[in-house]
Amino acid sequence: MNRSTVPKANPVARSAGTPVTRYPAPELKDLPDDIQARILEVQEKSGFIPNVFLVLARRPAEWRAFFAYHDALMLREESGLTKGEREMIVTTTSAANHCLYCVVAHGAILRIYEKKPLVADQVAVNYRKADISPRERAILDFAMKVCLQSSELNDADFEALHAHGLNDEDIWDIGAITAFFGLSNRIANMSGMLPNPEFYLLGRAPRHK
Amino acid sequence: MNRSTVPKANPVARSAGTPVTRYPAPELKDLPDDIQARILEVQEKSGFIPNVFLVLARRPAEWRAFFAYHDALMLREESGLTKGEREMIVTTTSAANHCLYCVVAHGAILRIYEKKPLVADQVAVNYRKADISPRERAILDFAMKVCLQSSELNDADFEALHAHGLNDEDIWDIGAITAFFGLSNRIANMSGMLPNPEFYLLGRAPRHK
Amino acid sequence: MNRSTVPKANPVARSAGTPVTRYPAPELKDLPDDIQARILEVQEKSGFIPNVFLVLARRPAEWRAFFAYHDALMLREESGLTKGEREMIVTTTSAANHCLYCVVAHGAILRIYEKKPLVADQVAVNYRKADISPRERAILDFAMKVCLQSSELNDADFEALHAHGLNDEDIWDIGAITAFFGLSNRIANMSGMLPNPEFYLLGRAPRHK
Amino acid sequence: MNRSTVPKANPVARSAGTPVTRYPAPELKDLPDDIQARILEVQEKSGFIPNVFLVLARRPAEWRAFFAYHDALMLREESGLTKGEREMIVTTTSAANHCLYCVVAHGAILRIYEKKPLVADQVAVNYRKADISPRERAILDFAMKVCLQSSELNDADFEALHAHGLNDEDIWDIGAITAFFGLSNRIANMSGMLPNPEFYLLGRAPRHK
Amino acid sequence: MNRSTVPKANPVARSAGTPVTRYPAPELKDLPDDIQARILEVQEKSGFIPNVFLVLARRPAEWRAFFAYHDALMLREESGLTKGEREMIVTTTSAANHCLYCVVAHGAILRIYEKKPLVADQVAVNYRKADISPRERAILDFAMKVCLQSSELNDADFEALHAHGLNDEDIWDIGAITAFFGLSNRIANMSGMLPNPEFYLLGRAPRHK
Amino acid sequence: MNRSTVPKANPVARSAGTPVTRYPAPELKDLPDDIQARILEVQEKSGFIPNVFLVLARRPAEWRAFFAYHDALMLREESGLTKGEREMIVTTTSAANHCLYCVVAHGAILRIYEKKPLVADQVAVNYRKADISPRERAILDFAMKVCLQSSELNDADFEALHAHGLNDEDIWDIGAITAFFGLSNRIANMSGMLPNPEFYLLGRAPRHK
Repeated sequence: MNRSTVPKANPVARSAGTPVTRYPAPELKDLPDDIQARILEVQEKSGFIPNVFLVLARRPAEWRAFFAYHDALMLREESGLTKGEREMIVTTTSAANHCLYCVVAHGAILRIYEKKPLVADQVAVNYRKADISPRERAILDFAMKVCLQSSELNDADFEALHAHGLNDEDIWDIGAITAFFGLSNRIANMSGMLPNPEFYLLGRAPRHK
Repeated sequence: MNRSTVPKANPVARSAGTPVTRYPAPELKDLPDDIQARILEVQEKSGFIPNVFLVLARRPAEWRAFFAYHDALMLREESGLTKGEREMIVTTTSAANHCLYCVVAHGAILRIYEKKPLVADQVAVNYRKADISPRERAILDFAMKVCLQSSELNDADFEALHAHGLNDEDIWDIGAITAFFGLSNRIANMSGMLPNPEFYLLGRAPRHK
Repeated sequence: MNRSTVPKANPVARSAGTPVTRYPAPELKDLPDDIQARILEVQEKSGFIPNVFLVLARRPAEWRAFFAYHDALMLREESGLTKGEREMIVTTTSAANHCLYCVVAHGAILRIYEKKPLVADQVAVNYRKADISPRERAILDFAMKVCLQSSELNDADFEALHAHGLNDEDIWDIGAITAFFGLSNRIANMSGMLPNPEFYLLGRAPRHK
Repeated sequence: MNRSTVPKANPVARSAGTPVTRYPAPELKDLPDDIQARILEVQEKSGFIPNVFLVLARRPAEWRAFFAYHDALMLREESGLTKGEREMIVTTTSAANHCLYCVVAHGAILRIYEKKPLVADQVAVNYRKADISPRERAILDFAMKVCLQSSELNDADFEALHAHGLNDEDIWDIGAITAFFGLSNRIANMSGMLPNPEFYLLGRAPRHK
Repeated sequence: MNRSTVPKANPVARSAGTPVTRYPAPELKDLPDDIQARILEVQEKSGFIPNVFLVLARRPAEWRAFFAYHDALMLREESGLTKGEREMIVTTTSAANHCLYCVVAHGAILRIYEKKPLVADQVAVNYRKADISPRERAILDFAMKVCLQSSELNDADFEALHAHGLNDEDIWDIGAITAFFGLSNRIANMSGMLPNPEFYLLGRAPRHK
Repeated sequence: MNRSTVPKANPVARSAGTPVTRYPAPELKDLPDDIQARILEVQEKSGFIPNVFLVLARRPAEWRAFFAYHDALMLREESGLTKGEREMIVTTTSAANHCLYCVVAHGAILRIYEKKPLVADQVAVNYRKADISPRERAILDFAMKVCLQSSELNDADFEALHAHGLNDEDIWDIGAITAFFGLSNRIANMSGMLPNPEFYLLGRAPRHK
């Protein structure tokens, strides 16, 4: 994420008094060192602290497991999925789960990775109409089935992805990312976690060459 | 809609060759005079021609009825609903119908009317988490029931709106707007109508005072 | 509709005091001239005034747009759909939306156009078991998808109709009629509009040759 | 059922060649004596043999159990439900199960018992809009829950009926009738059983006093 | 059912005071002779009286019809379905209807007939993952469609079973068993009928050869 | 878990050739030391290695995050939920997700913790009919809403738990456990992970005092 795409300050304020979440987020300074360090690193890179880092930090053990799982899937180097494809899975399935935090935050990252300012809104509203490749469409078909009807997955679902050159390890990535963000969506919906205002605008500006 | 919010040109291109719709849109010059006049007026005001004006114009009689209905509801002067509330109904119920055109186009108009850059994404993903007033929330509860379970509407649904000072004429507006855009959503989904790229960015910039 | 099929008087009364609708219907004499004229014409032809003409007339601008749209679709001369097929679409999808007015009123018109006294009840309960042609069955499959899952429409849905000789203009008719009556169903359900008792019996008598 | 309401002959023919059912109905003369006797009695009373009597007779043991169960519920003398209420339960829940046979056949009996030519179509399309009493509405609310979500039945559902003077034996009747016709609906849907044309018109004529 | 698989006494008690059902079960000694005789026979064979025999006996006419229907389907000698297959249909569809009595009681019988201690839990949770044959899987696909979407059954559903050597009489058995236990599930859910504790453990012990 | 409740050997074999999972499980000896150590500890305690430990171990980073998250929630000492309540949440919501592995494995642990041989089957089939306390019922109501409709959670859902003495930290536990096993369910369904046969029988035997 390039710092130049990040607004310096966010002039858009939420209504006075609306809490960020049902559950009070801790102060950064009160957090364990390892968590502080990671959060400062993110802040340095992004220009702000995404709310999920603070909201979950009230429970350090869960925070560590959550981000370890996140990184294992989303930063996995040997994956056959691009980082853009991974964010597309997150945005699409989080919309199906009506998770405002994940649609807005990961939609922003998706726009930046793919350099496509329109794609996040498209997959969030109806991925079947989005301006994406047949391979991406097949990935999202599988992800949506994991999200909504995982008990009905069958061999034909795997074969549809093989036809696009994806192997079973790639498919594990699709399923595990969907499953992990299904967890994230439910915790965000339960806790009332809301996206930072910065995310809404990130990656929307036309790119200059 | 203030012209100053409209980008001069749209540098974001869709993938080469993707048609705007399954159904060929007519040329502006081939349209009946009354339709041409209205479209030129919209173009003058917005800086571009929203796709719905051209896609539907292939059938002039339907075009005229569609926009007459649209105007009767959305421009109705004596309505107890603000124009922002009306666009909020459209954005929310169109998301429930997974209509990309209406969510993106009316989401843009909603942002502009309400001067709230974040609200359209919020109601599209989950209106229950949106930063809106209790009255707006009640309006959207009713609209979603008209959208998804109209056969189960009952007196309690009306009373919930009366409690917010809305009268039966206002409620007719809510229901009729929802019903009209349910029609629009289905035609857009059937015809493959896609939003102009301009809409995605409109009203997102922080407002200067 | 032949006057001879219309009962002279309706001996079936609704329970005393049950209002026709939540929203008071205006008196015919208080309506604008163009609306009065159309209503008198319908009354002349049918022997009674279908409730929809009076209930919607409380808002003349919406009334005019509604019937303009209705006529553009249902009276369209160049359509590849028969008038019976159009009424069959209306009856079937209105049943899926649980709209009493449209099932009963358009079911009556369907029986008369098709000269099939049983077909309306059949498609309303389960169009898959109705005594209809494969072409009609395919039309209703498409209409039901527009009605219930329009965001999932895809090329295969269009091809299934092409196989029965329907072209894309005919398919637009199917989709637009379904979408328009989806609007009508929601307004009827919201407003509590009920069918005139006359409709229930129209077209049911065995036809004499 | 008064013979005078039964048409002498049925001039409405189904399309040539459409079978009554996937499963061949036996000849009346080939049936066991007890089954023949019951069928002749019904024919004498109704003027025709309802298809269910022949279609199920291909398996005499199931036929006997089916009609024994039917009679135990529908003819139960000590029931607190009227026969009209029982037929109203059947018509409403059979519509929810999209069973053409039961909606048409029991809708006819409902019209006759209740002497209300409109009520069957009303409850079949949307019982919430039907011209029925609050007690009947409460009965149908319970029946629909047994039909569609029986695992969620709870004490409040029973109390809603107690408030209308129905006791637990009456509620058993409601539930058992719904359960029995859920069986009947599924067998009719599986076997392709269709209603006799006579049923469609029975009880629709305005009653003379 | 082999007596040796039946525990002598049931040390597992339900919470004190929890009634077996909303509806008081009659005393065995107060029942009509034919019902008493059948119940004593079952008790002799099983070592206990399954609750369904007592709960339904409060209405002898319904009891007789219920068990006549049960026996006609489940004991039918000429059926092409094995008794194990029939119990598998019952267990699977009763789980879809969330009927505790039938899942636990018929799951026990299924384990015993099939001599497979694990199969009942597998089909109850997700028959698609169960360790069953392709023929059994096809039978359960059909049964689940009868259970949940009987109005959509079509020729392809029959052909899928023909491909496994099942004929139309076997298919009638599948559908009728599903329909009958759909009735049973609804009555159990309505009445609060609970399984005898004995059923939970029956057939689970590894079999010695 | 007491070793004495574990069968020495499992005489119940799955059909020859049925793979444990779509994804090959690694050999214990090939795993990283920390993973080997944990697995050996579990094997020591349980008498066998639950399949989830091997199936997930093919990706050590995900394995570590998964079990860290699991332990943070399921072994959390300061939780207001008992371990039995936690397993009850897992069993109930995993049944809603049709996850065979989790229903069978965690159902076993639930039986053991609660010393109630029947409770796992009860909550898996229909928790509303289970022999559980009002507090447990309220916990499961909340868990099921997180599982199936997390976007609709609202203040009333929290208040229903407060009424049973649960505080917001306890509620976080309920929601997070449900969310975590929603992840687990989807991975098990995607990967074809099946429960070890040992789990089916654990905790079912009547307890001697």
